[in-house]
Formats: sequence, C-alpha cells, structure tokens
Amino acid sequence: GVTKKILVIPGDGIGQEVTAWGKKVLEAIAANYKHTFSFDEGIMGHVAIEATGNPLPDETLDKARASDAILFGAIGHAKYDNDPTLKVRPEQGLLKIRKELGLYANLRPIKLFDDLLHASSIKPEILQGADILFFRELTGDVYFGEKKRSDDRSSASDLMIYHKYEVERIARKAYEAARTRRKKLCSVDKANVLEASRLWREVVQEVAKDYPDVETEHMFIDNAAMQLIKDPKRFDVVLTGNLFGDILTDEASQIAGSMGMLASASVGDAIGFYEPIHGSAHDITGKGIANPLASILSAALLLDISFGLKEESQRVIRAVDATLRQGFRTMDIANKHTPNELLLGTDAMGAKVLENLN
Amino acid sequence: GVTKKILVIPGDGIGQEVTAWGKKVLEAIAANYKHTFSFDEGIMGHVAIEATGNPLPDETLDKARASDAILFGAIGHAKYDNDPTLKVRPEQGLLKIRKELGLYANLRPIKLFDDLLHASSIKPEILQGADILFFRELTGDVYFGEKKRSDDRSSASDLMIYHKYEVERIARKAYEAARTRRKKLCSVDKANVLEASRLWREVVQEVAKDYPDVETEHMFIDNAAMQLIKDPKRFDVVLTGNLFGDILTDEASQIAGSMGMLASASVGDAIGFYEPIHGSAHDITGKGIANPLASILSAALLLDISFGLKEESQRVIRAVDATLRQGFRTMDIANKHTPNELLLGTDAMGAKVLENLN
Ligand SMILES: CC(C)[C@H](C(=O)O)[C@@H](O)C(=O)O
Ligand SMILES: CC(C)[C@H](C(=O)O)[C@@H](O)C(=O)O
Repeated sequence: GVTKKILVIPGDGIGQEVTAWGKKVLEAIAANYKHTFSFDEGIMGHVAIEATGNPLPDETLDKARASDAILFGAIGHAKYDNDPTLKVRPEQGLLKIRKELGLYANLRPIKLFDDLLHASSIKPEILQGADILFFRELTGDVYFGEKKRSDDRSSASDLMIYHKYEVERIARKAYEAARTRRKKLCSVDKANVLEASRLWREVVQEVAKDYPDVETEHMFIDNAAMQLIKDPKRFDVVLTGNLFGDILTDEASQIAGSMGMLASASVGDAIGFYEPIHGSAHDITGKGIANPLASILSAALLLDISFGLKEESQRVIRAVDATLRQGFRTMDIANKHTPNELLLGTDAMGAKVLENLN
Repeated sequence: GVTKKILVIPGDGIGQEVTAWGKKVLEAIAANYKHTFSFDEGIMGHVAIEATGNPLPDETLDKARASDAILFGAIGHAKYDNDPTLKVRPEQGLLKIRKELGLYANLRPIKLFDDLLHASSIKPEILQGADILFFRELTGDVYFGEKKRSDDRSSASDLMIYHKYEVERIARKAYEAARTRRKKLCSVDKANVLEASRLWREVVQEVAKDYPDVETEHMFIDNAAMQLIKDPKRFDVVLTGNLFGDILTDEASQIAGSMGMLASASVGDAIGFYEPIHGSAHDITGKGIANPLASILSAALLLDISFGLKEESQRVIRAVDATLRQGFRTMDIANKHTPNELLLGTDAMGAKVLENLN
C-alpha cells in the first residue's frame, strides 16, 4: 500500500456537509486496499475570514504545500454576494490557492450515469452517450488580471489577459488527453472580438501541429454555449480559458443530470486539488439534503490522478453507479416521473455509497 | 399610413438570403396597411471589406443615420476565423455601428412557438410557458475596452470595463420592461470575482430601489448558464452585460427550438437596429436552407419598437405562427419524431409566411 497525506478543506456552506463523505470514502478505500492515508484539515473562505480575517490563512497554505493532495468542498456566502463593496471576500481564498499552487489546469469530466438519463432537463436521446472532458485554464484570464476602480468610483475594470505560455501548457495537456480518448479537441474562444482570444487561437493552432492525429475545431463561446445543449455528443475534449470554462462547465452540469454529480481536478506544477463543481449553496446549507456524490467523485479523481490508484478510483465510481442503480437519489437528481426512486438526505446517501464500496 | 425610411444591411453569409425575406415582409405590411416604406441598402462586414477595404464604409454609416430603422442580417467569414492575425475584420463593422449609433440596449425575446415544442433538445415540459426577455448591454464591456498585444507579442489583453452610467441606463430600460411583464428581473454578473461586476451589481441594487414593485434577483453567470437550461420558466426579464449576454442568449436559443427563430432589437439614443441572433453560418451559406424566420421576426420587432405599429407587428408574428401550424419547417426546426412536417428551403418558407400575411 501507499502512504499519503491528504489535506481536507471543507470550506463554506454545503462544502462542510459533502466533504465529510469524500473523506469517508478515502478512508474506506485506504482500509480496503491497505493504504495509509493521513488527513489534516484546513480552513478557507468565509469560515476562514470569520476565524482569522483572511480567506486563505498562511497556515492553510502551508498545510496544502505539505500535502500530497487536497480535497476541497465549496466557497462563498450570501453576505458577500449581497454586498459588492466588501473588500475581503471568500472567493479570494480559492483564487489565491489556485495561483499559489500553480493549479493551471482544471479538468472537469462530464459523463452521465446510466440511471440518471431521465434526471436532466435535456432529452435522453440527446444525452445518451455524451462524454466530455473539459480543460479549463485556471490561473489566468480576467480572473487574475489587474482590477481597478476609477478614483471617482464611477467605473470599474478587470484586465482579461493571456500569455502564450499559459495557453500552450494547458493546450498540450488537453491534446495529450484527447489522444487517449476519441481524438477530438474543441477550443473555445471569442476570437472574432477579443485580442486575448486571438492569441489563444494562434497558440492552439501552433500546438495542434504537434498533434496531427487529433482533430481540432475552434468554436466561439456563444456558439459553444448553444451546441453544448443542442448536441453534446459532438464534443470530446473541450479546451477553454478560465472565464469561458467557468460558464460552460456549469452549463454542462445539465448533461450529467445535476451539478451535484460533477467533480473536478485542478492540476499543474505539483499538488492536485479536487473539488465538486457546485458552489456553497447557502440556500440549502444545514438542511442535510445536499448531494455528496460530487465530493465522492472528487475523491475518485484524487485517487486516480494524484495517487495513480486507478483500480481504487474505479471502485469508487462503481459504488456510486451501484447506489444509483439501487434507486437512491438526493433531491437534485430525483425525477418525479421515474417510479421506485428512494429519496435520501446527504448522510444516508453517503452511507449507501460506503456500503456499496465494501 | 406612416412614411418611413428603412436601411437594409444584409451583411455576410446567410445574412443575404434571410434578410431578403425580412424586407419582403416589410413591403407586404406596407402594402396591406397603406404605409410608405422606402428602402435603401448598405454593405457591412466581409462583403464591405472585399468591396472597399473597410468593414463599415462611411457611406453605410451615413445611410444608417439618415434612416428611421435598420434591418440587418449577419456578419463574419471563415477566412478571418481561421486567421486570428488579420487586422481588418468583419465584426469590427458591427461593433462600430453599434457604438456610433449609441445602440446600448439589445433586446432579445425568447419565446417558443407552440408548434416547436418538440423541436428543442430540452424536454417539452421544461420549456412550456417559458418566456424570457433579455436586455443585453451592447456598447460597453470587454468588447469595447482597450485591446493590446505586448511588444514581443507574447501576451494579449482586453479591458473589461463598465461605467456607472452605462449600467444605469440599461438597468432602467430593463426594469421598465419588467413592469409591463411578470415583474421579475434577474441581473447576471460575476461579482464574486470581477470588479466590473461588483460595480454592475451596486448600480443595479441602486436602480432597483426605484422599482420596488419588481422582484430583483442577482445571479452569477455560471449559475445562470445552468439555470437557463434547468428551469427556463424561472426567468422573466434578464439583464446582462455585453459578453455574458452574448453567451446566454445564444444558449437560450435552445429554449426557442433553434437559433433560426430568434430576433433582436438594438436601441438606445436614436435609431433602432434589428437583426437575427444567428450568425453568418458559412457552413450553410448559398445552399438555400437557412431559416428566414429570425429575419422576419426581426422585421416584426422593427415595426413594433421603431414605428410603434403594434398591430402590424402582431400580424407578422401570427403569420409565422400560422406557417408553423401548417407544419412547414426549415431544416433547423424539423423534428424527425413529428409526423406531417413539411421541410422547406429558405425561399419556400419565406413565401409561406407571405401567403399567411395576406
Ligand atoms: C467560486 C468561484 C470563484 C469559482 C470560479 O469562478 O472559478 C467557481 O465558480 C468554480 O467554478 O470553481
Ligand atoms: C458577431 C459578433 C461580434 C456578435 C457579438 O458577439 O455581439 C454576435 O455574436 C451577436 O451576438 O450579435
């Protein structure tokens, strides 16, 4: 067995509730396969601001650097959403850790579990067989460019900026992945309007030359947002900038039935960082109804990508699949038109997956 | 009857094919209702670059200023999409005319014709009753902020910037419209990350105070891109910046069955500008299969908004509705699962609408 240190950062809102189950699944896998996983916990986001005034305390960052992989929950709180003038904000913690750890590639696999074919607002015949892997650039773009207010506060700006090396390194990662899949890559930009997108497209066109076996398509973001719903099966690997990736992957959650099903892996220079795509969901926090599967599937990604434990990772995915086959559903994936579904809360759902792991 | 001057700018690609039908419908309305519409034609986009080297020749702009309303087709060409290094680009013409004419508010109504309930990739029960009016800001944002390449060409940037007055004037228009509808307004931004969005949210919160009868909601763009597919019925008026509006409205085309059904009105300081939401679609240009209904519905918006001819506008919409009821479809709205549909090309479809107008 392997010996690994995992940092758990539950974060805000339902992050607390669901990450507990991601962690339990990792513990169960360690026990089953005789690995030694040691866990530490860190704070980030609103909870960290409340405790220390800082959305990403140095202590959390130090723990992150000392770990082999990080399992994260969610970030954000209504207080800040309602008051755009607040200077210290939860999301700064997440953006900072992404930057500090060099997590420039955010992988978001979109795949529907068979039993959720009817949970989506999209027709089953459109969804069946869809299987998309998003590569979202994560440490550049308008997220990290200079932010300004004019002195009289009458205007505000963010710089949307990309450097060639930033585009190139994620493009290579995306092409490598496409090679192991259906060999199609769609790069999304807005090159008909934006200079940063024109640089993006130039670099991708260059990198594409090294992957003649992969079919490359360039698509404008507006068209991509449409095609994703119209015909999700046309996509294999999708390569996007930070902002466009944020939008498209949330939208793509409807292909997987619910946001509560989607996990993501952020990788780059060193440590991997794993998190559900969903947010802190303050509207349902504390109610015990959040879907723990995205956190559990994040744990599966962690096992695979950071630890190279493919069999263990597949075992987690099979346990999720088995749980869905048994008819168990959290609220977000329930479908009133399907009989024999059994509605569960967060903990009961998590417990079913654990049972199916053993 | 009224006397009006209309400038027709067919633009590029299928713009040529479909705008012919928007114009014919305007001519038919003039004849039926004893109005005098005089038509002029202008060039813009790739066709204008080919003819004059300039995507928006002064002559077209002069004609635009001298008109009472403008009917536009589409813009763009594969040549420029494939070569991001070209300096003179078709889209510059469209962006320039929007800016020069002060067309800061782009209205995009999203409504499904009953007979197209099954044409969408989204389930009919999710769509039925959806009725959204987008207000997309059109002369600010990252579209118009400063564009730069670093001297060594290793980085490129666009400034995403909003001024308070820009947000305020479109917010007021959107709230006024919400008052005449279901009294709900959803403002979309990314205030958890972007400074320009925080200013956007502050201004909308201020303007909201003047409309206590309208229910205001603020939503992040990623969440909005998801909710739009998950539950389109929750939206009434949606207020967005230029970039987010571009993305969301293309996505929303799936609510209306097809991009080929959606019209838009750009208004602001003076003249109104009407165009389909779809692009130049070079892949189907010249094949005679493009859907002319978006252009025809753009003409309907023109009659209503620029000329105040509500009855005439409704008559056009009813003619489109009647045509769909008769089972006539262009390729984009055909549904192989619905029997008795009659597949038509652009001209045959346009002719059916004309018949139904009389
Ligand atoms: C919380 C927020 C800053 C974040 C982002 O926009 O990146 C989230 O939406 C995500 O997708 O991880
Ligand atoms: C052609 C392009 C510049 C334009 C835009 O992005 O505004 C189009 O997509 C639109 O929505 O009108």
